[in-house]
Amino acid sequence: MAEINVGLIGQGFMGRSHSNAWGQVNRYCNPAINPVMHTVAGLPGEDVEGFAKRWGWQNPSTDWKATIANPEIGLVDIVTPNFMHMPPAVAALEAGKPVACEKPIAGTLSDARQMAKLAEEKGLPTFVWFNYRRAPAVAFAHKLIKSGELGRILHVRARYLQDWAGEDVPMAWRFKKELAGSGAHGDLNAHIVDITRFVAGVEVEEICGAYAETLVKQRKVLIGGTGAGISQDELIKAGANSGDTYEDVTVDDTVAFLVRYTNGAVGTYEAARQATGHKNDNTFEINGTKGSIRFSFERMNELEYYDARLPQGVQGWSTILCTNASSHPYVANYWPDGHLIGYEHCFISQALDICNVLGGKEAVVPLPSFNDAYQTQRVLEAALLAASEKRFVKMEEVY
Amino acid sequence: MAEINVGLIGQGFMGRSHSNAWGQVNRYCNPAINPVMHTVAGLPGEDVEGFAKRWGWQNPSTDWKATIANPEIGLVDIVTPNFMHMPPAVAALEAGKPVACEKPIAGTLSDARQMAKLAEEKGLPTFVWFNYRRAPAVAFAHKLIKSGELGRILHVRARYLQDWAGEDVPMAWRFKKELAGSGAHGDLNAHIVDITRFVAGVEVEEICGAYAETLVKQRKVLIGGTGAGISQDELIKAGANSGDTYEDVTVDDTVAFLVRYTNGAVGTYEAARQATGHKNDNTFEINGTKGSIRFSFERMNELEYYDARLPQGVQGWSTILCTNASSHPYVANYWPDGHLIGYEHCFISQALDICNVLGGKEAVVPLPSFNDAYQTQRVLEAALLAASEKRFVKMEEVY
Amino acid sequence: MAEINVGLIGQGFMGRSHSNAWGQVNRYCNPAINPVMHTVAGLPGEDVEGFAKRWGWQNPSTDWKATIANPEIGLVDIVTPNFMHMPPAVAALEAGKPVACEKPIAGTLSDARQMAKLAEEKGLPTFVWFNYRRAPAVAFAHKLIKSGELGRILHVRARYLQDWAGEDVPMAWRFKKELAGSGAHGDLNAHIVDITRFVAGVEVEEICGAYAETLVKQRKVLIGGTGAGISQDELIKAGANSGDTYEDVTVDDTVAFLVRYTNGAVGTYEAARQATGHKNDNTFEINGTKGSIRFSFERMNELEYYDARLPQGVQGWSTILCTNASSHPYVANYWPDGHLIGYEHCFISQALDICNVLGGKEAVVPLPSFNDAYQTQRVLEAALLAASEKRFVKMEEVY
Amino acid sequence: MAEINVGLIGQGFMGRSHSNAWGQVNRYCNPAINPVMHTVAGLPGEDVEGFAKRWGWQNPSTDWKATIANPEIGLVDIVTPNFMHMPPAVAALEAGKPVACEKPIAGTLSDARQMAKLAEEKGLPTFVWFNYRRAPAVAFAHKLIKSGELGRILHVRARYLQDWAGEDVPMAWRFKKELAGSGAHGDLNAHIVDITRFVAGVEVEEICGAYAETLVKQRKVLIGGTGAGISQDELIKAGANSGDTYEDVTVDDTVAFLVRYTNGAVGTYEAARQATGHKNDNTFEINGTKGSIRFSFERMNELEYYDARLPQGVQGWSTILCTNASSHPYVANYWPDGHLIGYEHCFISQALDICNVLGGKEAVVPLPSFNDAYQTQRVLEAALLAASEKRFVKMEEVY
Repeated sequence: MAEINVGLIGQGFMGRSHSNAWGQVNRYCNPAINPVMHTVAGLPGEDVEGFAKRWGWQNPSTDWKATIANPEIGLVDIVTPNFMHMPPAVAALEAGKPVACEKPIAGTLSDARQMAKLAEEKGLPTFVWFNYRRAPAVAFAHKLIKSGELGRILHVRARYLQDWAGEDVPMAWRFKKELAGSGAHGDLNAHIVDITRFVAGVEVEEICGAYAETLVKQRKVLIGGTGAGISQDELIKAGANSGDTYEDVTVDDTVAFLVRYTNGAVGTYEAARQATGHKNDNTFEINGTKGSIRFSFERMNELEYYDARLPQGVQGWSTILCTNASSHPYVANYWPDGHLIGYEHCFISQALDICNVLGGKEAVVPLPSFNDAYQTQRVLEAALLAASEKRFVKMEEVY
Repeated sequence: MAEINVGLIGQGFMGRSHSNAWGQVNRYCNPAINPVMHTVAGLPGEDVEGFAKRWGWQNPSTDWKATIANPEIGLVDIVTPNFMHMPPAVAALEAGKPVACEKPIAGTLSDARQMAKLAEEKGLPTFVWFNYRRAPAVAFAHKLIKSGELGRILHVRARYLQDWAGEDVPMAWRFKKELAGSGAHGDLNAHIVDITRFVAGVEVEEICGAYAETLVKQRKVLIGGTGAGISQDELIKAGANSGDTYEDVTVDDTVAFLVRYTNGAVGTYEAARQATGHKNDNTFEINGTKGSIRFSFERMNELEYYDARLPQGVQGWSTILCTNASSHPYVANYWPDGHLIGYEHCFISQALDICNVLGGKEAVVPLPSFNDAYQTQRVLEAALLAASEKRFVKMEEVY
Repeated sequence: MAEINVGLIGQGFMGRSHSNAWGQVNRYCNPAINPVMHTVAGLPGEDVEGFAKRWGWQNPSTDWKATIANPEIGLVDIVTPNFMHMPPAVAALEAGKPVACEKPIAGTLSDARQMAKLAEEKGLPTFVWFNYRRAPAVAFAHKLIKSGELGRILHVRARYLQDWAGEDVPMAWRFKKELAGSGAHGDLNAHIVDITRFVAGVEVEEICGAYAETLVKQRKVLIGGTGAGISQDELIKAGANSGDTYEDVTVDDTVAFLVRYTNGAVGTYEAARQATGHKNDNTFEINGTKGSIRFSFERMNELEYYDARLPQGVQGWSTILCTNASSHPYVANYWPDGHLIGYEHCFISQALDICNVLGGKEAVVPLPSFNDAYQTQRVLEAALLAASEKRFVKMEEVY
Repeated sequence: MAEINVGLIGQGFMGRSHSNAWGQVNRYCNPAINPVMHTVAGLPGEDVEGFAKRWGWQNPSTDWKATIANPEIGLVDIVTPNFMHMPPAVAALEAGKPVACEKPIAGTLSDARQMAKLAEEKGLPTFVWFNYRRAPAVAFAHKLIKSGELGRILHVRARYLQDWAGEDVPMAWRFKKELAGSGAHGDLNAHIVDITRFVAGVEVEEICGAYAETLVKQRKVLIGGTGAGISQDELIKAGANSGDTYEDVTVDDTVAFLVRYTNGAVGTYEAARQATGHKNDNTFEINGTKGSIRFSFERMNELEYYDARLPQGVQGWSTILCTNASSHPYVANYWPDGHLIGYEHCFISQALDICNVLGGKEAVVPLPSFNDAYQTQRVLEAALLAASEKRFVKMEEVY
């Protein structure tokens, strides 16, 4: 069986998801080419040895450049903080190696454009971890629409709502622009722009208005530490016991925008971090002339479907449990019907598709490339422009 | 028991809802003053005698001016087509009589402003039939928020989605601006602007963008008739059997807009007539710092509530069946716990509150006045302005 | 238009539902023969005049025998307490008049048998108010199964769960066998035996076990009154303020049983009054070889349907909003699509079907006769026999 | 870090779940003692080498006796077919080693009794893989009830419904008693008896009736093969293309029973394989005097909770997304709030608890022992006795 050596650049939360994926893909699946967990390159100060041992990487390293340069490495996978995506990605492309990179691919639109351009020039395969595309329900929705089952697409409604950033949560790095890069918009709207482009097959033509707000404008500064690495509950308790010093939040916590697509359909987008009651509600609804679908990541194994071609008396919103090996993408790799999969399986399935593409087979559903990620980032940039200039923005204004 | 004679101006679909309400309120409830179904004034060509007999009006009339002028009439209720609301409303106010009027109160913002002004000058009670306020779940939501249970309001999401206007539905009066006055915006967004002002207690400060679209731009002209009075199914079948002549639709079928409220919260609004799978989905969600609520008129007896003050482990979206006589507004008038009420009960409860106010008691929850309806109409006008001029609009621009 | 004079025997809660139905049926519907609210005969001590005035009965009476004997009366409708159903029913049948009677038709199985027999001998139409049959979703389910859409029926699951009888609720007439006749079994299981016979078209062959329990065995005696006519909340508060005297509850509060049907299918039934969280959860599920349906009266406008003949990938539980005038029974009489109806509309629709049958037309779906009610009561009796003798019971043992 | 060598006896579907668990527990969690995947002992004819390589077992073996006897092995884990559980379990216990065994622990009640007795005599820890106990929602429900939040338990309703065995599915080993050991009862009711004992803390006193039926009595015999190892879809297609020979199904496909518990509560149980629309619907509801809970494995990350102590107006069924690291058992080992886990995580969490117990720590929630599995099997046996003798059965009759 052919093999490819993977070099992982970075650790952290996403390093964990990716490591799990590279390990599990050979157990659950039969990829066209088997990934080998060759090297993980950590940042100075991280316990890269412990990480490598726990997750099964053969070689821990503290030199990402050497890792990328290592001729044994066939695929570079990048999970560093966002603003550090570009250097290793460029290095890998320059070295003629395919790259998989966490989303968003870059800290600025200009960086994203250069990365997409370089990938195109080099003719190398690039992959971005918009992992939600590979939830079986989402991949199935993509296939339904692509095969015309919903007819002409008229409406897209996408929201990504969370509630972890209540006003009692104290100041932390995520609320500082210089540390986090962006707020709810870059973190959440990025996902739903990608997912709606993917599922509904639509491209934005014009932003018809937007707001970008920071609803909780100040947060209490913790006495004795930044709160890094402790849970939200502990953070809130620590905040309650701290003094009365407040600092300004410098990222947005809610951004919404309206769009017109090139095909004449219209859409609404919203990201929020104080939408009380929503934990990870990456949700969309798409209405076509022949039917509609709805999805929420909080019930990621389900797709809701309304088929307007059925006899009128039995039309209704149908809750499809997308766990059927014969009918729903990726499921055959895991468990029998009615046995749920979770968040991590989206990553395993993306690892599978990456290996299949690198091994000469097709992905089950299209993988997002650097250019895809760049197009998505253009939409986000245009929405911010609309919000700040209080006017509509045509997509051609932003590149 | 004190009584008040009602004069109904108009018939049609809404005449039926109102007649039922005036008849039932004395059976189910004990209003402070009993309404008597004195006179219904129909338009020429309508079977006003048959209507009066069926619904229990004592006197059919074809002269609405005489009906309003009749000194026996104590309350004028108007259900004529929208563009015909103003003349009887003005006549009634000039005659010193309280008026109840269907929504929207006028065909133009200017008319609405004049009506509101006249009502204020005359110091007369006016009522607008934004009947959804009186669904027990909606009235309960209003009370919850007013008593502070949700904390500071941050987000409002309102949609009114229907799907009756698919592309196979042929041309009809509702698709002609000159006949219908407005499309989805006036018909549907009017309701959700009123309901969110009522429930969340918010007032719009700025429209942050909007689209107003006609997604189905042409419709087949029926051979042999306008399709008036036949069902949608029959209409579609008739369309299929007609020729190949098409006409332009001259009203919008979907309008969305974003807002910033005076209290710093933000909101999204959307109306659509081709949202496949939604029949009468008048729905809103409101997020506060302490909790959230959700409602859909398609499950009008239920309110969803998330209380973020509960112990974290048991926090969740709770489906409250709002049928408890001791706790939920209006329910004590109808049936025991767990026995649903329907669409018409919102009208009965509004008739009850109108009679109570006229009889010197308080309404269970506030009734919308002409001024309320005018303020709501200003928001709609501002949204259209934003859509047409492709920019943000401050509320003070529109009056 | 032909008319028939109705004589209502009794008042109370059910008198209210029936009066509303007889009044509304002429407004909403066009029955083959118009019911006239001729006479209501109350019991001594009831305010029959006030009741008649409020609900629109032309003549109040305190003599039920005279009412039945009155040659002007064409239909006798009985809403007296259960143990008082038989005398007026027999009197009406003897007088050659059709009878409508609340469920259960009699206090004992023997009485029910005699009443069914007399009705058959006289050849007169009889109707029992198992009103839930006429919820549009239930009637539609009946039609679906009858037309074979679910294939061979394999499983029936029926429950009627309420929670109003918690252990804090003090003693009241409903907990006394001599006053109430029966407990949860007679009150609740009666409904679900009828509804499953109606919807699934099944007849019980054998009771395969049962329990009949009184989970709250004693209740506090109220100081100063029986608690009649006050709400449950007030009752609980009154109980909390009363002394420490307890009395035995002498009716069951939960009864479950298992059955085998004559067609080889199997079923489970359960009634409970302390099923915390269920208000009026009259619910059933039916599984056939080609599909399944589910219903709960707490969402009476909806039917859940699973069609196993659809392509596997899109199979799911579909929530049908049964408000479509063209497709769902009875709906065309009321409101447009997506506008809910409530509890009372089941009674209006039953009044409509009764009038249609008496006027020579067909009911939309079959009306339950005295014999139907007797067959249902046989099943209940057999279940109690199984519970008390701790063995299985064949239906032929009970008659 | 202390380690323990695991010897896995058997492969198959469950071998896969267990192997995954033993591998992942060291990555996601920090058990008190680290499991080492030492040896997998396959049956003759199985590709044990391929299995070992894929899942990370250090040593493949075809001699289960030698594996158990190997002094390096510290824990024996058994996933052989049911009727082959006893020999390795006895061998391990005799060798003084702790045992983990798939459910049911034995093919007969007598075997189960002997195994439980031997475990007790040897004083060795035993574990049975009733893995559903460790879904976070289920473990949380157990804790809620144990801490008294639901008050006195009154009702238990448990069902395990599947639909994979429709009448078109041809004959296969699962339909043959001699090959499968049991049908729906042993397969499905075993789980829900364990789960309700665990969550509600109830013990059965009496079986109040039961049915055990084979609704699809004959199945088509495949031409050319037993259908082993092919999917249900392919099986159905193969069946459709086969001849007209049918064979008798010799196991039950639906079994229901009613119980009275020792604490006075009552319960209903049902297992079915033709409950169209249910894929893996392991579901229960428990009603207490202070609240209720509901769970379905098809939404395994959610628990529904009704708290009857809240103010009446806001009482409702609350859907708790059990993904909160601070509040819900096991979650802290996996992903952030709102990121779902799946079927396999129940096994990982059970492996974690087993390692913790063997390492001297406590399990998060109690692990089922051989004696637990024996008590559960007694209930199943008693239910079958009730069904066959058509009478109630006291638990003391069965041992």
